[in-house]
Amino acid sequence: MNPTTPATAETPRTSARTRARTMRAIVKAAAGPGAEIREVPVPACGPGQLLLKVERAGVCGTDLHIYGWDRWSQERIKPPVTLGHEFVGEIVEVGEGVTEFAVGERVSCESHIVCNHCIACRTGNGHVCENTRILGVDVNGGFAEYVAIPVVNAWRAPANISIEAAAVMEPLGNAVHTTFAGPISGCNLAVTGCGPIGLFAIGVARAAGAARVVASDISPYRLDLARQMKADVVLDAREGKFVERCREITGGAGLDGVLEMSGSAAAVRDGLAALRSGGRLSLLGLPKEPFELDWNRLVIFKGITIHGIIGRRMYETWFEMDQLLGSGRLDLRPAITHVMPMERFDEAIALLRDGRAGKVVLVPWGEKG
Amino acid sequence: MNPTTPATAETPRTSARTRARTMRAIVKAAAGPGAEIREVPVPACGPGQLLLKVERAGVCGTDLHIYGWDRWSQERIKPPVTLGHEFVGEIVEVGEGVTEFAVGERVSCESHIVCNHCIACRTGNGHVCENTRILGVDVNGGFAEYVAIPVVNAWRAPANISIEAAAVMEPLGNAVHTTFAGPISGCNLAVTGCGPIGLFAIGVARAAGAARVVASDISPYRLDLARQMKADVVLDAREGKFVERCREITGGAGLDGVLEMSGSAAAVRDGLAALRSGGRLSLLGLPKEPFELDWNRLVIFKGITIHGIIGRRMYETWFEMDQLLGSGRLDLRPAITHVMPMERFDEAIALLRDGRAGKVVLVPWGEKG
Amino acid sequence: MNPTTPATAETPRTSARTRARTMRAIVKAAAGPGAEIREVPVPACGPGQLLLKVERAGVCGTDLHIYGWDRWSQERIKPPVTLGHEFVGEIVEVGEGVTEFAVGERVSCESHIVCNHCIACRTGNGHVCENTRILGVDVNGGFAEYVAIPVVNAWRAPANISIEAAAVMEPLGNAVHTTFAGPISGCNLAVTGCGPIGLFAIGVARAAGAARVVASDISPYRLDLARQMKADVVLDAREGKFVERCREITGGAGLDGVLEMSGSAAAVRDGLAALRSGGRLSLLGLPKEPFELDWNRLVIFKGITIHGIIGRRMYETWFEMDQLLGSGRLDLRPAITHVMPMERFDEAIALLRDGRAGKVVLVPWGEKG
Amino acid sequence: MNPTTPATAETPRTSARTRARTMRAIVKAAAGPGAEIREVPVPACGPGQLLLKVERAGVCGTDLHIYGWDRWSQERIKPPVTLGHEFVGEIVEVGEGVTEFAVGERVSCESHIVCNHCIACRTGNGHVCENTRILGVDVNGGFAEYVAIPVVNAWRAPANISIEAAAVMEPLGNAVHTTFAGPISGCNLAVTGCGPIGLFAIGVARAAGAARVVASDISPYRLDLARQMKADVVLDAREGKFVERCREITGGAGLDGVLEMSGSAAAVRDGLAALRSGGRLSLLGLPKEPFELDWNRLVIFKGITIHGIIGRRMYETWFEMDQLLGSGRLDLRPAITHVMPMERFDEAIALLRDGRAGKVVLVPWGEKG
Repeated sequence: MNPTTPATAETPRTSARTRARTMRAIVKAAAGPGAEIREVPVPACGPGQLLLKVERAGVCGTDLHIYGWDRWSQERIKPPVTLGHEFVGEIVEVGEGVTEFAVGERVSCESHIVCNHCIACRTGNGHVCENTRILGVDVNGGFAEYVAIPVVNAWRAPANISIEAAAVMEPLGNAVHTTFAGPISGCNLAVTGCGPIGLFAIGVARAAGAARVVASDISPYRLDLARQMKADVVLDAREGKFVERCREITGGAGLDGVLEMSGSAAAVRDGLAALRSGGRLSLLGLPKEPFELDWNRLVIFKGITIHGIIGRRMYETWFEMDQLLGSGRLDLRPAITHVMPMERFDEAIALLRDGRAGKVVLVPWGEKG
Repeated sequence: MNPTTPATAETPRTSARTRARTMRAIVKAAAGPGAEIREVPVPACGPGQLLLKVERAGVCGTDLHIYGWDRWSQERIKPPVTLGHEFVGEIVEVGEGVTEFAVGERVSCESHIVCNHCIACRTGNGHVCENTRILGVDVNGGFAEYVAIPVVNAWRAPANISIEAAAVMEPLGNAVHTTFAGPISGCNLAVTGCGPIGLFAIGVARAAGAARVVASDISPYRLDLARQMKADVVLDAREGKFVERCREITGGAGLDGVLEMSGSAAAVRDGLAALRSGGRLSLLGLPKEPFELDWNRLVIFKGITIHGIIGRRMYETWFEMDQLLGSGRLDLRPAITHVMPMERFDEAIALLRDGRAGKVVLVPWGEKG
Repeated sequence: MNPTTPATAETPRTSARTRARTMRAIVKAAAGPGAEIREVPVPACGPGQLLLKVERAGVCGTDLHIYGWDRWSQERIKPPVTLGHEFVGEIVEVGEGVTEFAVGERVSCESHIVCNHCIACRTGNGHVCENTRILGVDVNGGFAEYVAIPVVNAWRAPANISIEAAAVMEPLGNAVHTTFAGPISGCNLAVTGCGPIGLFAIGVARAAGAARVVASDISPYRLDLARQMKADVVLDAREGKFVERCREITGGAGLDGVLEMSGSAAAVRDGLAALRSGGRLSLLGLPKEPFELDWNRLVIFKGITIHGIIGRRMYETWFEMDQLLGSGRLDLRPAITHVMPMERFDEAIALLRDGRAGKVVLVPWGEKG
Repeated sequence: MNPTTPATAETPRTSARTRARTMRAIVKAAAGPGAEIREVPVPACGPGQLLLKVERAGVCGTDLHIYGWDRWSQERIKPPVTLGHEFVGEIVEVGEGVTEFAVGERVSCESHIVCNHCIACRTGNGHVCENTRILGVDVNGGFAEYVAIPVVNAWRAPANISIEAAAVMEPLGNAVHTTFAGPISGCNLAVTGCGPIGLFAIGVARAAGAARVVASDISPYRLDLARQMKADVVLDAREGKFVERCREITGGAGLDGVLEMSGSAAAVRDGLAALRSGGRLSLLGLPKEPFELDWNRLVIFKGITIHGIIGRRMYETWFEMDQLLGSGRLDLRPAITHVMPMERFDEAIALLRDGRAGKVVLVPWGEKG
């Protein structure tokens, strides 16, 4: 379980191991496509911060956007910045004023650094703080040997889970936040879109008590992973029978909920059509552009609830993950298809771009894979 | 309060007053525009039914559609049918097996006749029953001297409210259902669209504890009625400053909720933009056609919840109305702008079509207005 | 899935098999202990009713009270009455006005016959209707060859579950109602008291997504059944370490919820002490007498929520059971320890009284066991 | 509205006014009854803190306990400590690292200083943090000319409310937290116990949309204040007709909710008996000792929900207060019966002890009353 044992007065504030002054990191060095491995200074550990020796780091679709230098990236990213917003590490230094963590502990990391004083932050909605800065996007992240994080962003992962699972709690949090946005227990749920977060969501829905979990995607590779994550039924969206099949699977009743992870307008419309009256659609996938709905038929006449989902609840979602993972109910292994050296970042990007991977986890220089 | 005193064995099952065998009614007699006053048989009072002497009946936007014979009407209405789905009446006969109501009582009426055996009905969601038939649409309604209704559709209105208020509990139920779909107490809410249900919703939001109620419409006449219903701020949507003004009114925080009653795509988009992150949009107004949204910016990044709203909860919403009206917290008078003889139905339709009325209530033949 | 296919016009309203005019039944024949097997008339099938050929019937703790003729029974039971309020049967006749069920279908049965017109009934709380009459308690029940029930009390059990599981959906509903009264997914829950409903609750909590399920009782026999129902941890309450052990199991955090099935004051107090701040205690077990609490320490300072639980939601709980059982997530077999001829009712009572059984299911005369 | 305008770089970090090094304060100087006015050092303003010039401070029942040196105080208080946990002040200095507040602003103050790293704190339940220290109880409080507080405990009160209202937001928060623990809108609620927090709760329930508010107490003086706070019905608990009268007021239905502020066992039992089935009892009042309930009759058979309430949600409750007070819906004036110099603390204590006051607000030395 979690942060209950504060460091004692005797706890050393830095680890014994001598640290170099510089380290290797994957850096978006300039406006334009790509990223490069650079030697950069080891970050300082300021007041209220932790310095982590990164042990594992996950690669996210957002990293793909930054690498490809799409429009969103051009507006948001200010090079140079070290990438990487999903990671786990060992604490090697604790900043001034930090009492609740000690050197030597392993912590996972929430990527959203929030202001803690806007209305959203002060009313339990830090995940929609308008002043959010994101590690690996707005400030230096975890594709590096070391990373400095605010102590409030650290979460002691359960001791009994794999280091790779601990590394991907950030994106797992998206899956948990989406799934937990509405009723789960005894419900018939569909996950539309089986990228890494969709795959996680299948596992979460199963572990959290869904009666049946339907998964859909257009990639046979991903549908196979969905099956390994224990989806009860796997549908190839290219066959165009999603609504019909969901009716059958639910004995005519329709789905209780849809967890939308694809950003596809067709998936949203089919998802709404497949819901029973009174069902819920929880939207995490980002559509590439605005799209229209037949609101009357799909939303209003059916009394549907739609949730927009962003980030993870800070830190209710982390507690939920803790219990799902720590109890052993949730096993992420089939979704983590690749563990490879951080050195091979370009290859990891290529795997994801080509849809030949579930979640890819990177091992920094000097760590054993 | 409500149905707790069952009729005793001695209660007469029909009233003493001799009834004619025929009556006047407003009938959609044939496919095509308009409606006509006809002499038709007084309905029989079957098992499990009540026969009501209609005392007051409200005219709804749906009646306008049926009168105008739009596409929806052409598909749904099977003439001849007596119109009218909002009404209150005195029980003049109780059908076989009815024990909980007695001749002489005044009852309001839920318009949705549901199947009571589908999954929706059996799980507290009768308002989205797929087998729903609607009084005055699918079966003969209350624009008549008499109407027969299933006993479960009857609701004893609070004794202390006006007969006009009792007549319009059906559409008031839409306003209550929409308002009660999310948090109200201490919230800053906007009502977009100030037709009769929007006007009711302003009163409901105020009575139910909203901190501030903003109303918007494009008609100065309706905005004036909104003011009379005690909207705190009234905005002319034609000025295009809805989002900006809502920010100001809420000290920069944004609205907690929007109750959408206009069916306008612009109102939906502005409503979403004016919400704080984590706010809710409850949609009752029916858009004329599909429309698109910038889902990322307006829904997902803000963590918004959208509710499709249809009908009223059967009968939780009626109980809520009972308490709001019976306690005197909610006063509908400013919204009920016209009380006129049923004979002048064509004129009532014209008033509504031209936006020169709030709610119009009709007085049947033989009733004192 | 459920009641969607109404009987067609051609469906026969009674089965072809010739029925005797009398049948065997277990009858509380007179004030005083015991019950006897009698030859009684086959019930008539009135309007809105179904006549069932009983296939299986469960024995409940309440039957034990009636058999033993305790104080509650003396006040409530008006002999003669046929016992039995948990059963499944085949429809052999449908009463006048019934359209949604057909002869030959198998249905489980809700035991609470409610008035449908009080405030509780009309606001989705039929399970707390003050006019409730209970089958096998207030009106003739299902320990018989035939039983007549209101059609609204019938529930089409999933086709793929065992006839014994279908027979015990009524008490399973208590377990589901208790478990679903608060958060389940990813939660650490305890079930205190492992009688049949407690055993069911263990299975329900597991199937519905609890992270860890702790079970406690004072009987090694029942604790063994708890283990078979897949409790993660089983605690002998006689050892007096419930609170301490729950802390350990939850890494110091405390339980998220307690499902109280024993009626023991000690179990309630220990349950409250073992909860984390903000946790919930859902009370189904009936204490034998009033008892006191240290409200400040156990409830107020910890911000606890306590739910009183009675019956099952009509019929949301049945829908939940349908999904849990029909999906195969919930397996009741280890909890159903005995299936025996109805003829041996006295022996069934003895087994329960001596704590030598989980749930006992009876097979009526003429049915194959 | 709230904390949105961070101090700019130019904002002075201390006010121009020269401050003395010592100040007057009401101090619990030694174990034993009473408290004394002492000259003590002005507190230092540490990193992440604000130093406030106290403008108004409320006296609480807890101060009475500390003054009287009851058993709880003997265990909890470590003299010397400056009392006072309800106050408002002007910021005269901001500590290192504080960016969101500026010198010259007026802020109200949450009294609970929580750890921010235990599970409760990290999952939105800081109000039940097990490491809580309370201003004026465990650390020096606001019955003084100056007080130092953590910046996260400061809340910018709405600009348009009276300074006395701003001073009592802390105990108002208890009333709001209790009221908002269950449904309010359109509900019939009772407040049992009309001390200051009970009086506030009456106003909150009215402002937040309750249909009817019943108040009960045993003091005619307090019942008169309840009437002034706009209770719809005021009942003298000594007459023993609470349950009967609540039934009448609700037309036989029973109350939807009870807000228990007295700590009286009789009030709890009567409150439960007066609830409709499915109603809620929210417990804030602290019973002097354990007491027993007839759980079956009062809680389980009725399907009641009981909430233990402690503190205020941090800071959802503050946001709710902001909206209730800032919109003008909630007026606390009738409940604030005395505004008097802090110098006359002993007299304030006597007024409260004798039940001759609602809320008493103190004006520190050098402030204009």
